Amino acid sequence: MRTTRLDTAAGAAVQRPDTLAVEEPLQVRVGGQPLTVTMRTPGDDFDLVLGFLHAEGLVTCARDVHALRHCTDTGADGLPTYNVVEVTPAPGVARAGSVVPRAFPTTSACGVCGVQSVDDVRQRLRHDVAADPLELDVALTAALPARLRAAQAAFERTGGLHAAGLFDAAGELLCVREDVGRHNAVDKVVGWALREGRLPLRSCVLVVSGRASFELVQKAAMAGVPALVAVSAPSSLAVSLARETGMTLLGFVRPPTANAYAGEHRLRTGGPAPLSR
Amino acid sequence: MRTTRLDTAAGAAVQRPDTLAVEEPLQVRVGGQPLTVTMRTPGDDFDLVLGFLHAEGLVTCARDVHALRHCTDTGADGLPTYNVVEVTPAPGVARAGSVVPRAFPTTSACGVCGVQSVDDVRQRLRHDVAADPLELDVALTAALPARLRAAQAAFERTGGLHAAGLFDAAGELLCVREDVGRHNAVDKVVGWALREGRLPLRSCVLVVSGRASFELVQKAAMAGVPALVAVSAPSSLAVSLARETGMTLLGFVRPPTANAYAGEHRLRTGGPAPLSR
Repeated sequence: MRTTRLDTAAGAAVQRPDTLAVEEPLQVRVGGQPLTVTMRTPGDDFDLVLGFLHAEGLVTCARDVHALRHCTDTGADGLPTYNVVEVTPAPGVARAGSVVPRAFPTTSACGVCGVQSVDDVRQRLRHDVAADPLELDVALTAALPARLRAAQAAFERTGGLHAAGLFDAAGELLCVREDVGRHNAVDKVVGWALREGRLPLRSCVLVVSGRASFELVQKAAMAGVPALVAVSAPSSLAVSLARETGMTLLGFVRPPTANAYAGEHRLRTGGPAPLSR
Repeated sequence: MRTTRLDTAAGAAVQRPDTLAVEEPLQVRVGGQPLTVTMRTPGDDFDLVLGFLHAEGLVTCARDVHALRHCTDTGADGLPTYNVVEVTPAPGVARAGSVVPRAFPTTSACGVCGVQSVDDVRQRLRHDVAADPLELDVALTAALPARLRAAQAAFERTGGLHAAGLFDAAGELLCVREDVGRHNAVDKVVGWALREGRLPLRSCVLVVSGRASFELVQKAAMAGVPALVAVSAPSSLAVSLARETGMTLLGFVRPPTANAYAGEHRLRTGGPAPLSR
């Protein structure tokens, strides 16, 4: 696509080719029923769907899904859009309609608060993140966002994609996914892990290119990730949930500095003693 | 709250007080029925709800809403949470349940694609953005993000809040709102405008602190805004929708450069002639 590059001081303008982050709608259907529509960057759609269903508690492992396929829908140009994914649950696994995911409005009770949101997630966790023996070398951990950035294929061209990367305890990159939506990028990583039979993600570190929200901590905790590293700020409720689940949460990770908000007992600084909280 | 500041090279750590961007759930009810739950930064909740309902096409002006109130729910500590807003529609205005907002999964047709998403929005628009005679001085427009940043109260302390600011054609700030969610920040601005009887927002410029997604262009177009200015990248579908609706879209606005993606005919560079597209 061609865009106009402006020199805002001199008022000059030049036309130049540009690459944009692609955004397209994706509809998820479970057992033939529409479940949700999300705006996402096409690619790794099955991972996205699996990760989303996992975060919502609808599937817990690859065996819960009998089949995934792109619906053979066509767009206005008559070509396939690949924007509908049909999920066929395994026999005995609840279908959409019988299980209402957490993200949808269901409660009719009056109480809605952060404490309750944290409690809701804690009750749905299948993995004991707090018990994970992972130890984190501070210098190595702080270098992970740079490794993630180096592995991002599209960001350098578009500047418009969030990334999520999964690293093992030694700092080796296991999986990287990009998307216009940061929640989608994390869903794609978790969906990959689910498909690969790697859940729970014990002693792994999840790195995100942006901020850490409640939902990102939730998705990490659901997948059994003991450490979340964010380049930017965490929210209050992200910190609360990380502390309650026993997850290590780092934010503003921009060497030579970083902030630790939760789970400081896992941090090591070269010496033998962990950092006190 | 106290957090741990790490020196990642030296391995040193100091405890220090820190301020976090507050994130709490908000439930929206219409006529007693739960409509949605969103994570948001408390404050300007009524504006957020009005802007959300406007973007979804459920209300078009302040008269469509008979009353807004915070539900008197209490949290785990027995104190009011102010996390539920009850909307009482004016007589004759459709209630939740009878009108299903766009964001929810409704289509059972197989076709889901960007072109259709753009068409759906165009058919729902009430204001002719393309006909807006706004002219934009490039240098003045490029300076708006800095003005928005200067007006942001909480970002400097937390680093974790998105902002949306509404400016008039002369570059005067009309309204600024912050939120952990960038869509919420825009909803709060549009809700403010709806409450103030200012819709459609003719000859106004909406400035957002982050990226420009399809949804942000949609919200702006629904409110009749002829120009959207983003500090970061737009997505492909954001550009498509801006072009189809006749909106001017600037991205990567970081003086002395900026990119124009749509509606270049409104741009002026001090001389009399508009920039050709």
